[in-house]
Amino acid sequence: MSERIANAQLRGKVMSAQEAAEFINYGDKVGMSGFTGAGYPKVLPTAIAERAKEAHARGEDYAIDVFTGASTASDADGVLAEADAVNFRTPYQSDPVMRGKINSAQMKYADIHLSHLGMFVEQGFFGTMNAAIVEAVRITEDGAIVPSSAVGNNVEFLDAAEKIIIEVNSWQSRDLEGMHDIYRIPALPNRTPIPISSAGDRIGTTTIDIDPNKVVAVVETNAPDRNAPFKPADDISKQIAGNFLDFLEGEVAAGRLAYDQYVMQSGVGNVPNAVMTGLLDSKFENIQAYTEVIQDGMVDLIDAGKMTVASATSFSLSPQYAEKMNNEAARYRESIILRPQQISNHPEVIRRVGLIATNGMIEADMYGNINSTNVSGSRVMNGIGGSGDFTRNAFISSFISPSVAKDGAISAIVPFASHIDHTEHDVMVVITEYGYADLRGLAPRDRAKKLISIAHPDYRPQLEEYYERALQGKHLHTPHDLGTAFSFHLNLEKNGTMRLS
Amino acid sequence: MSERIANAQLRGKVMSAQEAAEFINYGDKVGMSGFTGAGYPKVLPTAIAERAKEAHARGEDYAIDVFTGASTASDADGVLAEADAVNFRTPYQSDPVMRGKINSAQMKYADIHLSHLGMFVEQGFFGTMNAAIVEAVRITEDGAIVPSSAVGNNVEFLDAAEKIIIEVNSWQSRDLEGMHDIYRIPALPNRTPIPISSAGDRIGTTTIDIDPNKVVAVVETNAPDRNAPFKPADDISKQIAGNFLDFLEGEVAAGRLAYDQYVMQSGVGNVPNAVMTGLLDSKFENIQAYTEVIQDGMVDLIDAGKMTVASATSFSLSPQYAEKMNNEAARYRESIILRPQQISNHPEVIRRVGLIATNGMIEADMYGNINSTNVSGSRVMNGIGGSGDFTRNAFISSFISPSVAKDGAISAIVPFASHIDHTEHDVMVVITEYGYADLRGLAPRDRAKKLISIAHPDYRPQLEEYYERALQGKHLHTPHDLGTAFSFHLNLEKNGTMRLS
Repeated sequence: MSERIANAQLRGKVMSAQEAAEFINYGDKVGMSGFTGAGYPKVLPTAIAERAKEAHARGEDYAIDVFTGASTASDADGVLAEADAVNFRTPYQSDPVMRGKINSAQMKYADIHLSHLGMFVEQGFFGTMNAAIVEAVRITEDGAIVPSSAVGNNVEFLDAAEKIIIEVNSWQSRDLEGMHDIYRIPALPNRTPIPISSAGDRIGTTTIDIDPNKVVAVVETNAPDRNAPFKPADDISKQIAGNFLDFLEGEVAAGRLAYDQYVMQSGVGNVPNAVMTGLLDSKFENIQAYTEVIQDGMVDLIDAGKMTVASATSFSLSPQYAEKMNNEAARYRESIILRPQQISNHPEVIRRVGLIATNGMIEADMYGNINSTNVSGSRVMNGIGGSGDFTRNAFISSFISPSVAKDGAISAIVPFASHIDHTEHDVMVVITEYGYADLRGLAPRDRAKKLISIAHPDYRPQLEEYYERALQGKHLHTPHDLGTAFSFHLNLEKNGTMRLS
Repeated sequence: MSERIANAQLRGKVMSAQEAAEFINYGDKVGMSGFTGAGYPKVLPTAIAERAKEAHARGEDYAIDVFTGASTASDADGVLAEADAVNFRTPYQSDPVMRGKINSAQMKYADIHLSHLGMFVEQGFFGTMNAAIVEAVRITEDGAIVPSSAVGNNVEFLDAAEKIIIEVNSWQSRDLEGMHDIYRIPALPNRTPIPISSAGDRIGTTTIDIDPNKVVAVVETNAPDRNAPFKPADDISKQIAGNFLDFLEGEVAAGRLAYDQYVMQSGVGNVPNAVMTGLLDSKFENIQAYTEVIQDGMVDLIDAGKMTVASATSFSLSPQYAEKMNNEAARYRESIILRPQQISNHPEVIRRVGLIATNGMIEADMYGNINSTNVSGSRVMNGIGGSGDFTRNAFISSFISPSVAKDGAISAIVPFASHIDHTEHDVMVVITEYGYADLRGLAPRDRAKKLISIAHPDYRPQLEEYYERALQGKHLHTPHDLGTAFSFHLNLEKNGTMRLS
């Protein structure tokens, strides 16, 4: 048995995944660790999926409700969805099999802000949480848990659950211990200020204390996180990154930002990584990240001495960078802090540290409403994630996207967003490879001009035609022609392209 | 000269409104006091409007950009709009003349969260603020300002403006002094926690210190706020209030709320006032309000011993209650606190105190997205106000509305909201006279069923038809048929009713 299980009582609970899965009953609400493919349980999901398949083969119902930090991986969400073992899923997912089941109405998904789910569990909005399944680097002598590569909603799930199953993963570096900062906000009505004033402040403990009597099983594992390689930045990504840096330089020139005051929040993906590569050669120094995910680009910024501290709730690294992190966690924990996602994404702290939020999008409408989640209004991709948490309370909020997708068949700027996740009141800057639209303080008609100017040139005439038609209406604060507001999307559905001619 | 101007230097600046208006130049950005018809400057707007009319008569351009706390009155926004003296307005307005000019594209309006505008001014998003025009109860010996019946963005405007004009209004009770709690959040990058843990905490001073050298004019006035009578609650309002109280009782039964733990936020209007009347006879005790506006119903709750403290940024009272407040301000200031709107509406404090937010709406779509601002997508009413500030960070967020408007021609539940101010991620409960739809933790398809169930019975078949049609689509996470998503609104435009048959 691994020396990673240092508590005698919990050593007595070690068993196989199959045995542990017997504790998970039909209809249970199960809170799992895991955030952007890091720190999720590696073997229990497969064992639960097997139980489901056996039950279904016997003609019995078996499915559970799955709560996590954010996305997991094919060996968690993927196998569970494949086995039709999930009835309800929240708050974020990105597995293709699960996405398919959600969009075909074979399972249900509730898209909840990442800062909200843990709080909702604490507030009792989901009733009894039956079980928590949480990955750990190790269990301490006192029976506390050292989380692994993501903290997510582990604290809330472990506190709320009737039963706890711990997966101790020896693939995760023991040197992650000390990187975490675990802090519980007192429950209502006794909440107090969160004493973080800058990204690097540590306010809690490095382990999660639990009630050992709730632990029903400890399972040993040795398996890697889902670490997907980043693609090298293409020309479009580089142009978007360049436009974003131009915007930052403009803020410095206007006296609203200093080269040593940039606090970064960044969504996950290749364009954000291109931004970080761009920052390596920029004048910005002493960058801080107050964000939800540590990506390759941030590790590079730390290594280059450009970033002093990165606060997040999880990693999302390429295999090569994950290996580096595993080997050098002792060094990186000097400048990386992993917090519960209720803290990493908390409106109070986000507003206080004054970060610049940068997230991707599916589409923006010409008045600055953003669709982050549902393609053509109905087909959910992954979920809103933390983009709302950061956008709503940022010093400056920005959205970045190529101006077109699918070889030009889809425009990222449309007359009316087919689903709205971020409203005109919250969106400050939108950036494509054609420039940036600074919408701050503008009335809707002035926003439309700016947003059309950064659309792909092929779509600008169509957008201008819509706008001119909308201006023929009776009420012109937010000019719209509702009869053709979704003409781009309807054309896509009918003809496979948003191009109208 | 009034003994209300106790500072010698500023006594030397007393002049007429006409003289003071000479300091306001064409193109100036002017920050004015005023929130929901309280505490706005009473004479400068008319004097500025006169200047504009004279300039226009001479063939000259003259218009200014007007920033306030929220809505003012016909003798402020109204006269300015009438004279075409406003180029740009933010963050909230409700004057019919101004609304008409905005919707006919004769002036521009930016609809900004009430908690954001002061911060944006501090952050330099609007560049130089040329002037602040602020109503005061009095000027102290030290040259500090005692605000009147609203604090709004006074602090931010007075700090940022190059020139200050003070209106000292002897209509306002001197006993308002002591009711205010003025606190400045340190500027970026040195922000610190706001030390409010419950609605009644006082953390600042009772006056606003200013730079007396920036004061260019002091004008004496004696004029009432715009105090509009509330209509007595009609049957529909009483039914909605009853359903809201049923929801609260359900939360108590579920163990998520105690009778002495209700922290109230309430939008302004007759339905919210009916809710407060309902609370008078309820089991709820020791109610606290952490809200933006003190209304008649809260005064009644205080008088009845049901409400222990009300924190807000302004009053919005009927004439009778305004007179009572003026006469008894010394007593009421024991239980009423007026704060800067950046504090009354701050996400940090809102989330901490765990309030239940209750706001009106124009329409909700069947998935729980809320339109608070633009009728049929284009025609702005008043603005989002503080509804986003409170909804986004509430313990529980709720929206209340009659199920139909305009004698049944308009349904408050529609397939697709024609403008979205609050997204599916933020809206927890929607209440009409037909019941409440508790959307917490539900996937979109389950939300649709609940929302259709509280629509007016005349509209339920139409909504169900739309939903069934949407279910024929290819992607069913958020079922929509974009070709008919706005059919209700298009029918209203064409036939004067949303009824399709």
